[in-house]
Amino acid sequence: MPGITPMDAPRSTSDDRPRAPGNIDQLCINTIRTLTVDSVQKANSGHAGAPMGLAPVAYTLWQEVLRYDPTEPLWPNRDRFVLSCGHASMLLYALIHLSGIKRLKDGKVTNEPAVSLDDIEHFRQIDSVTPGHPEYGHTTGVETTTGPLGQGCGNSVGMAIASRWLGAHYNRPGHTVFDFNVYTICSDGDLMEGVASEAASLAGHLGLDNLCWIYDSNTVTIEGHTELAFDENVAERFRGYGWHVTNISDANDCSRTRATLEEFRETKGRPTLIIVNSVIGYGAPDLQGTSKIHSDPLGAEEIRKVKAFLGFPEDKDFYIPDGVLERFREGIGQRGAAARAAWEKNFRDYAATYRHEATQIERCLKHELPESWASALPVFKADAKGIATREASGKVLNAIAEELPWVLGGAADLAPSTKTKLTTEGMGALEKTTPGGRNMHFGVREHGMGAIVNGLGLCHLRAYGATFLIFSDYMRPPIRLAALMRLPVFHVFTHDSIGVGEDGPTHQPVEQLASLRAIPGLVTLRPADANEVSEAYRVIFTLKDTPAALILSRQPLPIFDRGKYAPASGLARGAYIMADDGGEPQVILIGTGSEVQLCVAAYEELKTRGLRARVVSMPSWDLFEKQDKSYRDTVLPPRITARVTVEQGSTIGWDRYAGPSGAIIGMHTFGSSAPLKDLLKKFGFAPDKVVEAALRQIEQNKAS
Amino acid sequence: MPGITPMDAPRSTSDDRPRAPGNIDQLCINTIRTLTVDSVQKANSGHAGAPMGLAPVAYTLWQEVLRYDPTEPLWPNRDRFVLSCGHASMLLYALIHLSGIKRLKDGKVTNEPAVSLDDIEHFRQIDSVTPGHPEYGHTTGVETTTGPLGQGCGNSVGMAIASRWLGAHYNRPGHTVFDFNVYTICSDGDLMEGVASEAASLAGHLGLDNLCWIYDSNTVTIEGHTELAFDENVAERFRGYGWHVTNISDANDCSRTRATLEEFRETKGRPTLIIVNSVIGYGAPDLQGTSKIHSDPLGAEEIRKVKAFLGFPEDKDFYIPDGVLERFREGIGQRGAAARAAWEKNFRDYAATYRHEATQIERCLKHELPESWASALPVFKADAKGIATREASGKVLNAIAEELPWVLGGAADLAPSTKTKLTTEGMGALEKTTPGGRNMHFGVREHGMGAIVNGLGLCHLRAYGATFLIFSDYMRPPIRLAALMRLPVFHVFTHDSIGVGEDGPTHQPVEQLASLRAIPGLVTLRPADANEVSEAYRVIFTLKDTPAALILSRQPLPIFDRGKYAPASGLARGAYIMADDGGEPQVILIGTGSEVQLCVAAYEELKTRGLRARVVSMPSWDLFEKQDKSYRDTVLPPRITARVTVEQGSTIGWDRYAGPSGAIIGMHTFGSSAPLKDLLKKFGFAPDKVVEAALRQIEQNKAS
Repeated sequence: MPGITPMDAPRSTSDDRPRAPGNIDQLCINTIRTLTVDSVQKANSGHAGAPMGLAPVAYTLWQEVLRYDPTEPLWPNRDRFVLSCGHASMLLYALIHLSGIKRLKDGKVTNEPAVSLDDIEHFRQIDSVTPGHPEYGHTTGVETTTGPLGQGCGNSVGMAIASRWLGAHYNRPGHTVFDFNVYTICSDGDLMEGVASEAASLAGHLGLDNLCWIYDSNTVTIEGHTELAFDENVAERFRGYGWHVTNISDANDCSRTRATLEEFRETKGRPTLIIVNSVIGYGAPDLQGTSKIHSDPLGAEEIRKVKAFLGFPEDKDFYIPDGVLERFREGIGQRGAAARAAWEKNFRDYAATYRHEATQIERCLKHELPESWASALPVFKADAKGIATREASGKVLNAIAEELPWVLGGAADLAPSTKTKLTTEGMGALEKTTPGGRNMHFGVREHGMGAIVNGLGLCHLRAYGATFLIFSDYMRPPIRLAALMRLPVFHVFTHDSIGVGEDGPTHQPVEQLASLRAIPGLVTLRPADANEVSEAYRVIFTLKDTPAALILSRQPLPIFDRGKYAPASGLARGAYIMADDGGEPQVILIGTGSEVQLCVAAYEELKTRGLRARVVSMPSWDLFEKQDKSYRDTVLPPRITARVTVEQGSTIGWDRYAGPSGAIIGMHTFGSSAPLKDLLKKFGFAPDKVVEAALRQIEQNKAS
Repeated sequence: MPGITPMDAPRSTSDDRPRAPGNIDQLCINTIRTLTVDSVQKANSGHAGAPMGLAPVAYTLWQEVLRYDPTEPLWPNRDRFVLSCGHASMLLYALIHLSGIKRLKDGKVTNEPAVSLDDIEHFRQIDSVTPGHPEYGHTTGVETTTGPLGQGCGNSVGMAIASRWLGAHYNRPGHTVFDFNVYTICSDGDLMEGVASEAASLAGHLGLDNLCWIYDSNTVTIEGHTELAFDENVAERFRGYGWHVTNISDANDCSRTRATLEEFRETKGRPTLIIVNSVIGYGAPDLQGTSKIHSDPLGAEEIRKVKAFLGFPEDKDFYIPDGVLERFREGIGQRGAAARAAWEKNFRDYAATYRHEATQIERCLKHELPESWASALPVFKADAKGIATREASGKVLNAIAEELPWVLGGAADLAPSTKTKLTTEGMGALEKTTPGGRNMHFGVREHGMGAIVNGLGLCHLRAYGATFLIFSDYMRPPIRLAALMRLPVFHVFTHDSIGVGEDGPTHQPVEQLASLRAIPGLVTLRPADANEVSEAYRVIFTLKDTPAALILSRQPLPIFDRGKYAPASGLARGAYIMADDGGEPQVILIGTGSEVQLCVAAYEELKTRGLRARVVSMPSWDLFEKQDKSYRDTVLPPRITARVTVEQGSTIGWDRYAGPSGAIIGMHTFGSSAPLKDLLKKFGFAPDKVVEAALRQIEQNKAS
């Protein structure tokens, strides 16, 4: 683990002493501004307004407060900086460049700059490390991918929870291994988004005093002044959430910024919101304070005026005055290096005394699994009555959680239904006074949950969320971002079909499976029985850079006799031949989840009629598509075109496996409120319907 | 229009005089409770807790305040009641039954009860009008489909906006045609959801003093006490949003309920939040106040105790004591009938004086289009350079909006980009002081926008929302509910692909098209050029019970020469042959939106090489699947298996049209930040790529 050899005693603020802002600091601030206008102009796109307005605040935060060693961007106890208003990306790229953050390559720190001046000149260009919005994993120093508003706010709550969780688990007297703070810059847009509201409410509830949101109240949005749509009293709202609220009435007043950041660090038991009154596009005489500067390049003429106003040479682009880089080195550079050195020294002592804990930390940070873990995976006995896959999931998840201490998560107020509660003694609730709890109560806040889980994942915890599959719709943006960031988080989505029964069409998923499958890089798994659930978890925990969605039934499903049928380990390949009597099958029956039992029953029935069918259990399209062609053709031989697919969901996409003449049994409308048995009849999900379709397929195949 | 003959002068409160709650009122309240426990018990599922706790508040609201004529549920100026916590559906069903609301059938009022006692006995059963969660259009008296939390809150904001909008447009001195109030009962869960936060913030901004949310603070959620996840100061938060906040400290205190409802009606310039402290499951001695009663049947023993406690015969189920129905008739029944009669009288006079307005109202309520409207649809001249389909959309939408006064909408702070602003003089912003404006500023609140648009649609306005396609992910729940409710609302989703360019993968849709297509009953349209945009609007406005999503490009697209190629009117059938030289085509090129130009260019290139291709423009899978087989087979003859599909989106679902051997050109990963020309190269979208694929297809077809 890079950088993991040791650390400091309880956090001291002595290295963060206020300093008078001299000319050199102003020069640094204005360099951020001019780099921004030049890069946006050259790219002919991008957002200069927010970086220009916020430069002094962000500069003060980074230079004087943020505990970050530019030479070791993986230092686990670094403070986290989140730019939730990702469109202001040039602010972050400028800071990364000027701070001299080193580039990571294959998980190692190199001597290359994370963002070079050349990269800044290639802002928003193909394959550059300076894309339009900051991308985690793509650009070193970017702690999370932002742009879709509100998400960074939610992530930051997860990060702050992670800091406290790690501290609660691993800190020991005299050895503070984890106590990082999380700073988030956010915009009007972020605070209008519901996901930020949800996350803020939970942050207040949990009393996250290591979390500081810096809200850029520049009063300008794309459509115009915020008066058009947003004139709430943000301070009052956040006090309602239980936050400490303070303000900086002039973004250019660095001493006030310094004071509010100090206020944040002195505030205990509550997160802090700092409301900054800034002028969007500050320094652009003709455009500042208007929506025009929100997302348009300034134009050469205005840029000249900006440079004149800021005292920069008008004819030089991407100009970094003498002394600026040095100033950053003696600011964030020296502070960060000293803090990290102290931490490393301390951690060496810690590791000597607390070997077990140090090993755990190392494994957690590397997403390594202890050898024993897989043996903990339960094997379920065949049982015709069976159990719901959500029930099985509860058992498997609990077994794994005992092996892996850094597994934590919870549901959006549905844990008794999603069966995601970790019940082993000591795995209590994660609450304000018990920050090391393993069970999170997210409240009825699915979207916030998704964003918070991403934040936990960004801090290396194996985090999960849970809700009914239907409510995955409430949290698609963070699911997508987990896929884009390649974060190994997962979600447990239960009540996965009309199997929901009486709750009716508002609660019965139809299109959700198809919609999740459509997200690139997300692994969607819909196991057919308890043993496939166990195998699904084996896959999920082995994935180091892929998020997963586990789709589970509300109702009991038979546990197949794996002596009679193929072992559930076939799940790992996405689809596998579960039943086949040898010889060329006359028809292939393909099912997922609760519908595999229909295929198996139909298979047995066809067998009694002397017909050769094959059952393919297909829990994951994504995994199946990753297999080589020969495996795929073995499971679904192209020459066998008599096929029936069965899934209680939208039929979209099934043509791929059914082929042009195959039968697709699925949902074509919304569901209905009734006991499940009535719904199965109404919507045509029964073994005899599969048999009928199979017979027609066999007949048709003969004919052709 | 049923019921549209006339109405009252400015709202009087004289018919809402406080009355002392006598025994008969208590009997009515307890009847709601016992009907609830009996129906949940019989169904063996459902939520009894909230109806039991809230019965007195809901009873007082309905009996004494709600302006609703049970014999005319379509009366356009009725107050709207929204049960946002839809799981408490038995509360609503009991009220509908006891109030004697008449059933609608084919848009006409019948003499049948909307909900009979038999229906209540069949709570949550197949095809009953008493499904698990209330469904609009399915059960008369249900004003919106609820269950997914927070949505009803959002809908109610839209309804309150609609009331003010209709009033602003159609009220005349002495003739108040529209001034209905909107009452919403919501739960802890509703207020935790971000969508409710977004809607509340906008409601405060707009000063909706005709909106009253009654918040059931019963402190119990599924996972346990709200202390687990929700201890914010709701009152302070809502005051921050600009709401008037009051409270009922005991849900059983009807006089206090009466006083707060009066307070609401006297509060001007702000919406009102009434916080009710209730005991969940009130009346169930062993279970009340616990999470167990949130969503479990009580059991026979506890039900006997409930009935004993409430003074009801323990051995009678679904028992309605004498006098209860009469009490409702003399309460809400008489008040509602009188109010409606007064309104109708007034409206008769109004219609005589203001014929034009009365005709407009009638058309608006019936979703009728004036004859002239279609002639307003622009026709665009062929132009190789062309314009972005979002640009074309702006022109078409404006042309229609001039013809149809009840078209209104807006964007989630992206109107300058989505081109959805109505620019004709007089179509100003809809703001607090200009409630009749046609341009809504939703702020950066996509989810709230979706729910609010549904509320507007429920009040018969042709409402639309707009944002970037990527952000449709933020608002899937209300899009789905619009489809489930069959509401003719629509959304304009622009920036529909990697065509977004420099903003990068966070802003480039990949899976969104597939995900929208998967929603049953939603029409998704991705027009190829400006004339297809015009035709898309023709489809959208002709739909009376179907929502639509219009998917548009950021970048300019050529406007095809419709003399040379088939007319754009083919769009109405979902897919059509756009170019074909006669004779059996050797290959079919299928595209949507911005990729149709690639198909056309490839077609022309193949033609120069002496090869016969066909171009199919396929703007809407949904509409195409509605066509009869013979049309579908004409466009895509099954025998022609050489096919190429091209779309800058997830390939999921394209197998259906490409067939098993066809080529599918699409996106397999997330996009990237760069100028579009570089992205097209990187991701392989160019005419020569289509030509190559077509040649391979022709070759392969020959070989087979």
